[in-house]
Amino acid sequence: MALVVQKFGGTSVADSTRIKNAAKAVIKEYRNGNKVVVVVSAMGKTTDYLVKLAGEISPTPCTREMDMLLSSGEQVSISLLAMAIQEAGCPAVSMLASQIGIITESVHSRARIVDIKTDKIQKHLDANKIVIAAGFQGITPDGEITTLGRGGSDTSAVAIAAALKAQRCDIYTDVNAIYTADPRIVPKASRLDQVSYGEMLELARVGAKVLHPRSVETAKQFKVPLRLRSSFNIEDPGTLVVGDENMEIYRPVTGIAADLKQVRIAILKVPDKPGVAARIFGTLSENNISVDMIIQSMEEDEVNNIAFTVHENDLNNAISVLERVRQEIKAAEIVVDNNIAKVSLVGAGMVDRPGVAAGMFDALSEAGINIKMISTSEIKISCLVAKEKAEEALKSIHKKFDLDTKDQHPNEIIN
Amino acid sequence: MALVVQKFGGTSVADSTRIKNAAKAVIKEYRNGNKVVVVVSAMGKTTDYLVKLAGEISPTPCTREMDMLLSSGEQVSISLLAMAIQEAGCPAVSMLASQIGIITESVHSRARIVDIKTDKIQKHLDANKIVIAAGFQGITPDGEITTLGRGGSDTSAVAIAAALKAQRCDIYTDVNAIYTADPRIVPKASRLDQVSYGEMLELARVGAKVLHPRSVETAKQFKVPLRLRSSFNIEDPGTLVVGDENMEIYRPVTGIAADLKQVRIAILKVPDKPGVAARIFGTLSENNISVDMIIQSMEEDEVNNIAFTVHENDLNNAISVLERVRQEIKAAEIVVDNNIAKVSLVGAGMVDRPGVAAGMFDALSEAGINIKMISTSEIKISCLVAKEKAEEALKSIHKKFDLDTKDQHPNEIIN
Repeated sequence: MALVVQKFGGTSVADSTRIKNAAKAVIKEYRNGNKVVVVVSAMGKTTDYLVKLAGEISPTPCTREMDMLLSSGEQVSISLLAMAIQEAGCPAVSMLASQIGIITESVHSRARIVDIKTDKIQKHLDANKIVIAAGFQGITPDGEITTLGRGGSDTSAVAIAAALKAQRCDIYTDVNAIYTADPRIVPKASRLDQVSYGEMLELARVGAKVLHPRSVETAKQFKVPLRLRSSFNIEDPGTLVVGDENMEIYRPVTGIAADLKQVRIAILKVPDKPGVAARIFGTLSENNISVDMIIQSMEEDEVNNIAFTVHENDLNNAISVLERVRQEIKAAEIVVDNNIAKVSLVGAGMVDRPGVAAGMFDALSEAGINIKMISTSEIKISCLVAKEKAEEALKSIHKKFDLDTKDQHPNEIIN
Repeated sequence: MALVVQKFGGTSVADSTRIKNAAKAVIKEYRNGNKVVVVVSAMGKTTDYLVKLAGEISPTPCTREMDMLLSSGEQVSISLLAMAIQEAGCPAVSMLASQIGIITESVHSRARIVDIKTDKIQKHLDANKIVIAAGFQGITPDGEITTLGRGGSDTSAVAIAAALKAQRCDIYTDVNAIYTADPRIVPKASRLDQVSYGEMLELARVGAKVLHPRSVETAKQFKVPLRLRSSFNIEDPGTLVVGDENMEIYRPVTGIAADLKQVRIAILKVPDKPGVAARIFGTLSENNISVDMIIQSMEEDEVNNIAFTVHENDLNNAISVLERVRQEIKAAEIVVDNNIAKVSLVGAGMVDRPGVAAGMFDALSEAGINIKMISTSEIKISCLVAKEKAEEALKSIHKKFDLDTKDQHPNEIIN
């Protein structure tokens, strides 16, 4: 008897019809003889509606009260899904994060999980019940309600799967697999049957919205096999995300993606003294601002320019904390560029094939697209380009690397 | 420095404008130098919306999951009200029943409060914060979420006021005072500045929907002065509900009301043996079915008819448990009458004035209305009449006892 964790996102529980559909996927697993824990997000547009309500009351609502407000969303979806499963004749019980004991750090709006109690879930599973757990939310040791931030429900699901040592974690969403690029932007994108955690992590980080990077990191850390699949077609096996050691093939290029939500911040004429970079990025980190694509360039004697990207939601906060740092370190100026897109290429096999970076730059050059900034990791290359060029950039890179779909499994041809 | 508990019902927090309005009433109390605890219901039509959603999924959703679902409603309203108060510059913190420690018995959908922890509320009050507490909901010692049933938020407010030994509990609603009858049915109804707990209790029990009987009972038991007032006119002092010892005047008739939600159940030819009534009403009580207006009549030798009323929502449940009892006690038949209205007259002073009951029967007789059943208490007389006669019955009784408004304080004339 296997233990399977299933996660349903907001679109998969958007109305009563879809909730009944999700119940079918749950019951199928349960009737196959598995123990099942289901993690659920808030229904469809609930979060947007609640955010709008809060906005009518305060332009800057306090994060503690926002967490209280938003976490009501999953309370609705878990109870409705439990009812739908009971109505279909199977025993189910819904549980809030506070009831399970999903303990997080004491930070609001983007808390990290520090511990998950398993005794109460286990008791229900032992009684042959399907457990429906609220995703996205947590509770501090003091009993304060927290939320996990963007993609939080994916993280809840993987963390619960890890805590319960589940055989598999199935993430149900509105796409049926992971593709070499977003098929809405690149219609010829090819389907992937299997990707590694590392590839998925980079794809998620660079803007492929199907899985949140934090959930993939957690899955990698605890070796939880993830399966991304469609709640609208529960027979489709979707894409399996596994460890490198379980990968059958190494592709030089797994996929490409564009992130249009980044902004570039440059701090000009930073005195070239030890500790200056630590001061800048330490301050951002203390303020919970994630930074990507850091570049330091030597400008002239004794001064550097330091540029990096942050999510557009963090821009105002970043600017206000950086202004104090700028004065302190006696840098000249802070410059913001909003008109950027981060176009990235990911592939676990690229480390052995030196031509990949060159091929990406070629593709952009042939399309007449200027590169504003470059950053690389072992399995990823990212270029900043002008926002309006993002789609063209994706298409030209996709074509350059022969990712365009030709038959059922086009990737096997290029590997 | 006084401690004031305020309670806002669903219509008083129905949208962001009304929430800001409620915040004004809270802040007024706080700026007067009082400590303030606010108890809030779910926003306007939220509960109806959630009940409808559940109905789309299951015709008979389990009560545990209904409690989980419905208690999300107050989570939304408490956080929004806290934001509105903060936005106006005062410190506020929202708290769920599980965070406060509003402990109830382990019954779903109509749990009774058994204990309220005050330490966490007190800590916030000591830090000069306004505490916004979720009404209607509770938590069992096992951590299961419960709801208090109809009028639960009123009960939450009074119980919290009692636990904190508050000086006053103000119930804000969409009416500005208690009247001698529902002004929507009897346009000439007169306003009451003061009523006793006993009168309010009977008025609430017989269908005056402004305050739930359970909340009035709790207020009476713990001597919490209640003030019923309008959230749309926070300068209006409303109606004060206090103990008999604080009443300035005793009215023979305080008010009248009709309850259209009762149904009559009659058990025919019940053998006249000891313990039979205890068996019938004990079974109903074990199934959490409240019974009103019990009449036992001697039919012929050795058999009685027993009739009583229950709330229409409890009818199906009552019939199914009573059928088993009927077979066991060998009664002949169970008969249901749906077409009834319970018309009641309440007045703490009627005990000294024997003509009140006669006056009520006179009024009904003059209007040509047949009385199906009569029940009396020290301060109340109730008659069952045909449902379609309820409005006419109310108007004729109101007129008979000179309750029709003539000037500012018409009641002083008849006392």
